[in-house]
Amino acid sequence: MERPRHQGMTKNTYMRWRLPLVCLLWEVAMIVLFGVFVRFDPESDAHWEEEKREKNLTSDIENDFYFRYPSFQDVHVMIFVGFGFLMTFLKRYGFGAVGFNFLLAAFGIQWALLMQGWFHSFRSGKILIGVENLINADFCVGSVCIAFGAILGKTSPIQLLIMTLFQVTLFAVNEYILLNLLHVKDAGGSMTIHTFGAYFGLMVTRILYRPNLEQSKDKQGSVYHSDLFAMIGTLYLWMYWPSFNSAISEHGDAQHRAAINTYCSLAACVLSTMAFSSMLQKKGKLDMVHIQNATLAGGVAVGTSAEMMLTPYGSLIVGFICGIVSTVGYVYLTPFLESRLHIQDTCGIHNLHAMPGLIGGIVGAITAAAATEDVYGKEGFIKAFDFTGTYQTRTPSVQGGFQAAGIVVSLLMALAGGALVGAILKLPVWGDAAAENCFEDDVYWEVPEDEESDAYHMHNPDKATSP
Amino acid sequence: MERPRHQGMTKNTYMRWRLPLVCLLWEVAMIVLFGVFVRFDPESDAHWEEEKREKNLTSDIENDFYFRYPSFQDVHVMIFVGFGFLMTFLKRYGFGAVGFNFLLAAFGIQWALLMQGWFHSFRSGKILIGVENLINADFCVGSVCIAFGAILGKTSPIQLLIMTLFQVTLFAVNEYILLNLLHVKDAGGSMTIHTFGAYFGLMVTRILYRPNLEQSKDKQGSVYHSDLFAMIGTLYLWMYWPSFNSAISEHGDAQHRAAINTYCSLAACVLSTMAFSSMLQKKGKLDMVHIQNATLAGGVAVGTSAEMMLTPYGSLIVGFICGIVSTVGYVYLTPFLESRLHIQDTCGIHNLHAMPGLIGGIVGAITAAAATEDVYGKEGFIKAFDFTGTYQTRTPSVQGGFQAAGIVVSLLMALAGGALVGAILKLPVWGDAAAENCFEDDVYWEVPEDEESDAYHMHNPDKATSP
Amino acid sequence: MERPRHQGMTKNTYMRWRLPLVCLLWEVAMIVLFGVFVRFDPESDAHWEEEKREKNLTSDIENDFYFRYPSFQDVHVMIFVGFGFLMTFLKRYGFGAVGFNFLLAAFGIQWALLMQGWFHSFRSGKILIGVENLINADFCVGSVCIAFGAILGKTSPIQLLIMTLFQVTLFAVNEYILLNLLHVKDAGGSMTIHTFGAYFGLMVTRILYRPNLEQSKDKQGSVYHSDLFAMIGTLYLWMYWPSFNSAISEHGDAQHRAAINTYCSLAACVLSTMAFSSMLQKKGKLDMVHIQNATLAGGVAVGTSAEMMLTPYGSLIVGFICGIVSTVGYVYLTPFLESRLHIQDTCGIHNLHAMPGLIGGIVGAITAAAATEDVYGKEGFIKAFDFTGTYQTRTPSVQGGFQAAGIVVSLLMALAGGALVGAILKLPVWGDAAAENCFEDDVYWEVPEDEESDAYHMHNPDKATSP
Repeated sequence: MERPRHQGMTKNTYMRWRLPLVCLLWEVAMIVLFGVFVRFDPESDAHWEEEKREKNLTSDIENDFYFRYPSFQDVHVMIFVGFGFLMTFLKRYGFGAVGFNFLLAAFGIQWALLMQGWFHSFRSGKILIGVENLINADFCVGSVCIAFGAILGKTSPIQLLIMTLFQVTLFAVNEYILLNLLHVKDAGGSMTIHTFGAYFGLMVTRILYRPNLEQSKDKQGSVYHSDLFAMIGTLYLWMYWPSFNSAISEHGDAQHRAAINTYCSLAACVLSTMAFSSMLQKKGKLDMVHIQNATLAGGVAVGTSAEMMLTPYGSLIVGFICGIVSTVGYVYLTPFLESRLHIQDTCGIHNLHAMPGLIGGIVGAITAAAATEDVYGKEGFIKAFDFTGTYQTRTPSVQGGFQAAGIVVSLLMALAGGALVGAILKLPVWGDAAAENCFEDDVYWEVPEDEESDAYHMHNPDKATSP
Repeated sequence: MERPRHQGMTKNTYMRWRLPLVCLLWEVAMIVLFGVFVRFDPESDAHWEEEKREKNLTSDIENDFYFRYPSFQDVHVMIFVGFGFLMTFLKRYGFGAVGFNFLLAAFGIQWALLMQGWFHSFRSGKILIGVENLINADFCVGSVCIAFGAILGKTSPIQLLIMTLFQVTLFAVNEYILLNLLHVKDAGGSMTIHTFGAYFGLMVTRILYRPNLEQSKDKQGSVYHSDLFAMIGTLYLWMYWPSFNSAISEHGDAQHRAAINTYCSLAACVLSTMAFSSMLQKKGKLDMVHIQNATLAGGVAVGTSAEMMLTPYGSLIVGFICGIVSTVGYVYLTPFLESRLHIQDTCGIHNLHAMPGLIGGIVGAITAAAATEDVYGKEGFIKAFDFTGTYQTRTPSVQGGFQAAGIVVSLLMALAGGALVGAILKLPVWGDAAAENCFEDDVYWEVPEDEESDAYHMHNPDKATSP
Repeated sequence: MERPRHQGMTKNTYMRWRLPLVCLLWEVAMIVLFGVFVRFDPESDAHWEEEKREKNLTSDIENDFYFRYPSFQDVHVMIFVGFGFLMTFLKRYGFGAVGFNFLLAAFGIQWALLMQGWFHSFRSGKILIGVENLINADFCVGSVCIAFGAILGKTSPIQLLIMTLFQVTLFAVNEYILLNLLHVKDAGGSMTIHTFGAYFGLMVTRILYRPNLEQSKDKQGSVYHSDLFAMIGTLYLWMYWPSFNSAISEHGDAQHRAAINTYCSLAACVLSTMAFSSMLQKKGKLDMVHIQNATLAGGVAVGTSAEMMLTPYGSLIVGFICGIVSTVGYVYLTPFLESRLHIQDTCGIHNLHAMPGLIGGIVGAITAAAATEDVYGKEGFIKAFDFTGTYQTRTPSVQGGFQAAGIVVSLLMALAGGALVGAILKLPVWGDAAAENCFEDDVYWEVPEDEESDAYHMHNPDKATSP
């Protein structure tokens, strides 16, 4: 029994040739570019034995692999299971949530290895990659996963692949401006990942505004077990966020400290989220949407400052505030953005990534501006902010100013980039679904006829009797 | 369509002001106390460069972060996903299981950092924290998650937060008595975590005895997919238990050995659980309750001894026996405890944590008493039991005696503490649900109306036709 | 209400005495054999302090535990959650998928520790185990999980335990021939794990051919949420495969490189899988079966070569091709194998493990044959292929030949072993279900009566009114 689909007259969601073409084209391009450019870095190359001798390393454990690989795997889980399952909350879009996230992330990490490689790991004509590059590629793709959250359920996989191509490119440019030109610190990506990714996605969904989206209103909610699937995503993001914020910090105390600060911020965030989720509801009941999302805001908001001497109580304060801001955002701001500004934000990334990302940038700027040699120690101070070479004479307050500039740059890049990409995605050739078929896996996926859909049909007695 | 709730006359489960108040109060207290007391320890502080020089460390890899962070993350997963999802087996209490576990653990780790900090990491007026403190905080909260298992579905979130506050406090006191005063070894927490947590929870549920609980009998079972969600919890607990038992052992061979012993014990436990699950059932079929729980008893039961020279076959024996004990407990003891002793133990923590915890304490005492310099080596012997300073002259058999004393102390602390906390929780102001509304998410959560509930209504023809 | 089971006349699936007997017998044998043979290796033994002095190790971080434990845990997750949940895609076999996988793996790792121990870690009458042995035991069991995929839903737990006993034994023999006699490199197990495991399983399912299996056709599909459970398995396999392929490589660059190559191969594989999944379907929709399985083929296919200088673009090419081969296999080959060759392959392991495993072996042989001192460096070359001692004079092309021989040996061992074990399992005493009861948890598990089954019954109006 085929479930009837009411497609709009002009909407052709047939993917058979378009999707394969884009996938294969993208991947062949990757193969060619990797062939020309990408090689192993000295720590993953078989010449490592010689490298070790040159660098006077006495043990294989000094290989960066052992400093970063566990964190890399945690980040990897966040991108694929964390973001993927977080978005399965919709009752009939679980395949699209997990599957398209899988697709765009798998492409995105390859393109990110190239783009970030050209900017940061380009040595005599080759991009040399190691575990840190893998983490950075995952980070870059994280920003695309965030943007995906805003347009979840409303775009075709082709649109997602195109968005990924552009967004990764712009991410790398923005990241280069911040890290290299402005010499900004942002190890956990409050600015480069969250602010950039969220405002990019919000701009795209604004451009792709669908006036008739209420036609699929019934599918925009969750069911009992889809909320539990989403909690898998939430918990993995929450648990592994300390790894996210510490993954590319300097070896030693910086990684250690970043993990502790993030752990603290996230813990506080859970309590303020629960408090406001109950408080803002007439019946006083907790809302799964808040628990699934706002509890994570604390991780976003210490993305810049976690590796600094934010201190555990500073982290608690930041997490506490962001849980409130984010929950309030879900209750009051999301409906406002949709009705007034025509920003249809499926997952509420404005509450989870945009606002906490901005807060994170600001907290980072303040923490940097407030740094003293007393708190960091003479060597620690220089190491923490990399005040060497050209930046030898930079003071904390100047650093704070540059950090603030980084927020503005990220924001502008995101809005401009999102507008551009939104305009491209608006072209009527990419196979997105009509408004009444949004949030429905059936459009792009073979969906099994199952007991639940039987149950679903029971209200239509005619169908239930003709299986 | 609002599902009708039949609340008892005297039961007010309205959380709107009470829950936010407690959450915010608790969290503000944490912020103040962290502000006064908590700082980074030397390995997570920016002064680490100087520390390294003083301690003659040649590499950043010597930072404790690299010894313990991977284990910490595994333990973190156990607490939040492991315990959280293990308890989703109930058909309509998945939100409460995962969500309340999330809430109490997020609060608990903060309070544990303080409590354990005052006892163990207090230096010149400050609590200095590093990754080992994070692990210990997670451990402490683990004991609360265990106790939660006994009262699952029967308490309000406020009661859980109050229980967490008290239980963490008592945990820290008990831990101090065992580790510092009795100089007992208990790296995996058979006594401090499992015995203490389980008997505490059993005492609480005894005091909170609900004579009419059979009114919610229909909700006290599982459905097909809730059993699968629960298996996610089971497997993560099972897989990561070697990390749990080795996380805070001494660097080097002790961590290594603890992981191996736990791996062996758990493997054996699966087979004896499966055997007895089938054997004790007239139809010979396997029971998911046993597979979800009793397979983990082997990890509990080597919690004390895993870091000792228990040997792989010793571990197999312990795991084998505990699988049997735990499964038999589920079949015969749980009904007995409920009907005769009025102990309503939702998750059967008596079988998974209490009995195996006691066995674990005893196995630890025996293993310690049987230690010889021959088996451990001269240095290894001293290192394993920390027979230095005041304890230089302690013999293995004396150590065994102290280990046994540790079991008794944990048991008494748990029963006394549980009675006290149970009495507090019995006050009629905390918003717990009436007996007929136990095991029902609808009381404290916004629950989506979904296909399944439609299916549920089909037996009531009147409702099914009026959606 | 007991759901009626239509058992074939001769099929007795009563497990009450048989399953416990086998479980207890197996486990007692393990305990005895561990008691006689298994001890800690020098790095997990309490004598490690002395070992450290002898080996001039300056730090505990040099313990192999810190090189391999994070990878071990990732592999552990792959075996228990990865394989377990991947197989939950069937609508009514989730308990069996996760539960029996749990059972066979828990037994298998113990027996593998012994079998592999006798071949590889036998020192003066004892098997000395450390973390690398745990990884290898998990690897060995991985091959059994693969074979389980072919017979999923059609065998009793007793048959699985018997198959595990034999397959682990043969695995160890085959591995010994390859690694020790042929001196073949196969760190990620393209040959030893995937080729061997898959052809073994295919042969077993061929021997156990069930002509009337279409009687349970309705249960051989998925439902919406079972496909999401399966994606948990898929993603954990996909994310952690870099750990799988690098877990037992040499310390340093080899582990590092193996992770990078696998990461790249898997990323490319996702895109070609998506492309062909859409292309090979008339409606152009994506098929969850492909996404769940074929996306993993890239990990299988670099199992041998990942630690070599395959290079990132080489990995992309291999992953790209294998995504295509595997997807095409699901669409065209699986139906052919079933109808013509009578190979009923429930999970399609021929597409995910057999063909990619063979490709992996071939890629490994070519990569080895193409190795030069220029690419690897003089020392790196010797280290990568262990061209020391007896093998000092072996050239890359000779190595390539031996690698190719390894494929053939694995294939023959698998087919012969599978035929033998299939014949044993065909004996009518092991309690497998009749054809019409295949793929049904109800046969071996206590299954809760739940809403879904209510919904299921709604097509039978008689039942729906008599709950």
